[in-house]
Amino acid sequence: MSLIVQKYGGTSVGSVERIKNVAKKIKKAVDSGNKVVVVSSAMSGETDRLLALTRELSARPDPREQDMVVSTGEQVAIGLIAIALKEIGIDAVSLTGWQVPIYTDDAHTKARIRKIETGRIQEELEKGKVVIVAGFQGIDSFGDITTLGRGGSDTTAVALAAALKADVCEIYTDVAGVYTADPRIVENARKIPVISYEEMMEMASLGSKVMQIRSVEFAAKYGVRIHVKSSFIEEEGTWIVEENEEMEKIAVRGISHELKESKITVVKVPDKPGIAAKLFRALGDNNIVVDMIVQNVSHEGYTDISFTVNKVDADFAEEIAREVAEEVGASGVERNDRIAKISVVGLGMKTHAGTAGKMFEVLYREGINIYAISTSEIKISCLIDEKYAELAVRALHEAFIENQETIVVE
Amino acid sequence: MSLIVQKYGGTSVGSVERIKNVAKKIKKAVDSGNKVVVVSSAMSGETDRLLALTRELSARPDPREQDMVVSTGEQVAIGLIAIALKEIGIDAVSLTGWQVPIYTDDAHTKARIRKIETGRIQEELEKGKVVIVAGFQGIDSFGDITTLGRGGSDTTAVALAAALKADVCEIYTDVAGVYTADPRIVENARKIPVISYEEMMEMASLGSKVMQIRSVEFAAKYGVRIHVKSSFIEEEGTWIVEENEEMEKIAVRGISHELKESKITVVKVPDKPGIAAKLFRALGDNNIVVDMIVQNVSHEGYTDISFTVNKVDADFAEEIAREVAEEVGASGVERNDRIAKISVVGLGMKTHAGTAGKMFEVLYREGINIYAISTSEIKISCLIDEKYAELAVRALHEAFIENQETIVVE
Repeated sequence: MSLIVQKYGGTSVGSVERIKNVAKKIKKAVDSGNKVVVVSSAMSGETDRLLALTRELSARPDPREQDMVVSTGEQVAIGLIAIALKEIGIDAVSLTGWQVPIYTDDAHTKARIRKIETGRIQEELEKGKVVIVAGFQGIDSFGDITTLGRGGSDTTAVALAAALKADVCEIYTDVAGVYTADPRIVENARKIPVISYEEMMEMASLGSKVMQIRSVEFAAKYGVRIHVKSSFIEEEGTWIVEENEEMEKIAVRGISHELKESKITVVKVPDKPGIAAKLFRALGDNNIVVDMIVQNVSHEGYTDISFTVNKVDADFAEEIAREVAEEVGASGVERNDRIAKISVVGLGMKTHAGTAGKMFEVLYREGINIYAISTSEIKISCLIDEKYAELAVRALHEAFIENQETIVVE
Repeated sequence: MSLIVQKYGGTSVGSVERIKNVAKKIKKAVDSGNKVVVVSSAMSGETDRLLALTRELSARPDPREQDMVVSTGEQVAIGLIAIALKEIGIDAVSLTGWQVPIYTDDAHTKARIRKIETGRIQEELEKGKVVIVAGFQGIDSFGDITTLGRGGSDTTAVALAAALKADVCEIYTDVAGVYTADPRIVENARKIPVISYEEMMEMASLGSKVMQIRSVEFAAKYGVRIHVKSSFIEEEGTWIVEENEEMEKIAVRGISHELKESKITVVKVPDKPGIAAKLFRALGDNNIVVDMIVQNVSHEGYTDISFTVNKVDADFAEEIAREVAEEVGASGVERNDRIAKISVVGLGMKTHAGTAGKMFEVLYREGINIYAISTSEIKISCLIDEKYAELAVRALHEAFIENQETIVVE
């Protein structure tokens, strides 16, 4: 008998009909002889509706009270799933975050899980019940409700799977798995059957929406085997597991793109020590996360400094950059919101040379200018004009995935 | 400095604008130097919306899971009120039933409060905060969420006022207080300035919708002074307090009517001992609450037995009556859904003779036939045809309230 944690996202439980469908899926797992713990998000649209109510009352709603309001979305969903299960003869019990309990720190709206007590869940499982746990929420040491931030239900599911030593954590979503590229852009994109935690983290941080990055980190830390699959189609999805030698045989696992960033350039900065430090310290002090940074070669004692930030922070970052620019005597600040970050990701890069060169060549061949480059051991990202994003993804997919020469059979 | 418990009903918090209005009312009480604990219902319509979701999944939703779903309505409301208060500079904290905690028995969907621990509320009050508590909900000994049944927020407010030894429990609602009769029927209905717990209980049980009867019982038991007032108009409402000698000077405090009952008659029952017992035991065994009972005088060895039940139980009660009728050889069962129960209520009846006689005379004068009569020390109820309900209320109001001869000045 296996213990399975199943997580259903908002679209999977988006209506009464869909909840009935989820109940059938759970019944199937139970009928196959498994113990099942379910984690659910709020019905799609519900979290946004609740957030909108709080924002009608305050531009900056108190975070503790916002969590009080928003956490009800998951509570409704788990109760409804339990009712749907009982209706088809499966005994079930729903538990909120505080009922489990799932302890978190007190960073309201973006709390981190500290500890999960599994006593009540084990007890209910032993009674033969399916246990349905509210995703996205926990309780802090003051006894107050916290939430884990957007996509936090994935983290709840993975953390529960780790705490319960589950055999697998199934993430049901509205796509059939993780793809080699966005299938809406690349016709020939393929579902990836197996991907390593590290590759998945890079994909997640680079704009692949399938899973929240923190939940993949968590899975990697505790070795939780994840199976991402569609809640609407019956087929194998993508397994996210520990890396193994087999995986390194493929240089590039996938191509991802990200349109969420803005590029800000401080122009004609006097090339003196300490100026970059001043700029990035000011941004950091204001909690703005900077992604890519480029500093041009100095000529005639001046240089340009460019960096990228998430679009939601761009106004504030530009304001700070202007203050620093004036202070240090730079000639001005320019901003470009129409940029894209294109990345190739793959464990095999560790052992296969030449991926970067090939990537630049493909972009050059398509006449695409590169504004900035950043690399990690298993990823290369290039910043380009937004208008070339789709072209770049298609060309790179063709070069690295479709014409895969890099499958090394030893 | 006084400690005030304020309770706001669903219509009082029915929109973001109304929640802002509630926040202003609370601010006023705080600015006058009071400590304030607020109890809120769910935004109007929300409980029904949530119940409808559970019923789309199951004709008889599991009660524990129904409570899980429905209790979120109040949780949303209290968080929003706290946000609205903070926005206008009043420090506040919201608490769910389990956070207080308010302990109840485990009778899901109709739980009774067992005990309230006031530690956390006291602590937050001492920090200078307004404490906003979710009405209608509690937690049982298993750590599961319970709800108190419709109108349960009144009970939460009164129970909190008792536990905190509050100076007053203010019930804000969409009417300006308790009236001598329904103002939609009787043009000259007056707001009652002061009413006793006992009178209010009779009025509540007889269809006056202002307060849930259980909450008035609770107030009577613990001597909680209640002030029912409008959340939209600034004026004194109705005080509900211990009875005093002054009150007995008025024979009739108010006239109420109730259209929720059905009359069921078992026709031509053989007049033998034990048959009535059999019928009412069968009804009781099936949890059907019987209100009025009439047994006609026997003639030729046969009698008719009539009783009234709430309309929602009428189908089931009729079914049971038919079974018993067949068993005991009665000739059949008749049912009448178009009946009304009209009552006059007043402490003064204890000391003023002749109220019953006067009531029957008024109805007789209007040509209204009486099907059944029931009395208590402070109330007389008559069952009549539904079509005469408004006429009866108006006539009785005129006789007992408008032409009040019963104000005894000693």
